[in-house]
Amino acid sequence: MKSVVLLSGGLDSCVMAAMAKEEGEVIALSFDYQQRHRHELDAATLIAHHLNIQHQIVPLLIPSSSALTDKSQTIVKNRLPEEMVGIPSTYVPARNTLFLSYAVSFAESLGASQIMMGANLHDRACYPDCSPAFFTAFNALLQVALKDTSINVKTPLIHLTKKEIILEGLRLQAPISLSFSCYDPHNNESCGRCDACVLRAQGFEEAYRSLRSGSEKPNS
Amino acid sequence: MKSVVLLSGGLDSCVMAAMAKEEGEVIALSFDYQQRHRHELDAATLIAHHLNIQHQIVPLLIPSSSALTDKSQTIVKNRLPEEMVGIPSTYVPARNTLFLSYAVSFAESLGASQIMMGANLHDRACYPDCSPAFFTAFNALLQVALKDTSINVKTPLIHLTKKEIILEGLRLQAPISLSFSCYDPHNNESCGRCDACVLRAQGFEEAYRSLRSGSEKPNS
Repeated sequence: MKSVVLLSGGLDSCVMAAMAKEEGEVIALSFDYQQRHRHELDAATLIAHHLNIQHQIVPLLIPSSSALTDKSQTIVKNRLPEEMVGIPSTYVPARNTLFLSYAVSFAESLGASQIMMGANLHDRACYPDCSPAFFTAFNALLQVALKDTSINVKTPLIHLTKKEIILEGLRLQAPISLSFSCYDPHNNESCGRCDACVLRAQGFEEAYRSLRSGSEKPNS
Repeated sequence: MKSVVLLSGGLDSCVMAAMAKEEGEVIALSFDYQQRHRHELDAATLIAHHLNIQHQIVPLLIPSSSALTDKSQTIVKNRLPEEMVGIPSTYVPARNTLFLSYAVSFAESLGASQIMMGANLHDRACYPDCSPAFFTAFNALLQVALKDTSINVKTPLIHLTKKEIILEGLRLQAPISLSFSCYDPHNNESCGRCDACVLRAQGFEEAYRSLRSGSEKPNS
């Protein structure tokens, strides 16, 4: 099995790359779309190196304005996880449609039959292009768009919380410590207050608690 | 009505840009994907200038090999239109999925509600990503991928032959003479023998005949 993995450099895609590696050959793609949290591209490089998988950083300018690419826009801060509803300013129009389309073209030319993307339970609550309905529609599109109709997109984390992803990462010995999630870093340090930082911190806290209580065993 | 038009510089997109202009504001996008028939980008620029519409040439590298981008691959020549069945060497994996994804992101950020693409009866016979099923699936994807669910892709030429497109172009006074269709030009001259040249020549011959016979009137 040859897989193309979308490796942002964040926690989710780090764990997913480790999952994909268990299944066979992996080629990781990261997109440089002039995101202000460019440090994630360095994290992606370190993760790919640690996992010993092929990795390409692809320059792909997105023609839309978003708080993720435009420093004049405000990234929302200090929200509790339960307040993270609705589409936030960090939404980038058609971002995942564009990234997946590129990955599909790459996969068809390589003879890879699956593309893996780390969308999860938190993402899908806020971003339309992280929802199960989106991935179902994208796979339906692939059935009629390509010469090779066996190619499809898999999202193995779509029903998992951050805590569950961290526990899965520990089980797989994924290089979680190399991942980087912050939307608004300063001098490559996480802000600790954007949605990505808040969810990551909560995930580690919950994973730690469940490990302490003995309800989960990472290397079982 | 604000429309984003995919303007390759060929005959079909030239006529379609003229159609779109009748409906309102038009922004044309051409993609520089290192196609060997780069002269079409000059044609697109001339067409947009003639129609007095906004125009952007977007560099968008496609990670796949195809006879359209790789000079070591052979472009099929001297086929009769009825021999043009099956997917040819000029197929580019996921090309239209990628171009449309970019156009959709652009449209959402601009507040444009439609994207127009000149796929037609000849294209759909050979290229999966020019088929009615492809555009239906792409529009179904847009329903769940975006914040603005009113955006959709229109393909007004999908049931038309080259002859019919030329006649429509004459009716609209589209600058057909500025368009360029050849897949394999030398010194910016059409080869006359690739599928695109054969179909274009046949279209003009048939349009000429029907105008001579009086069955069609371009400016009626």
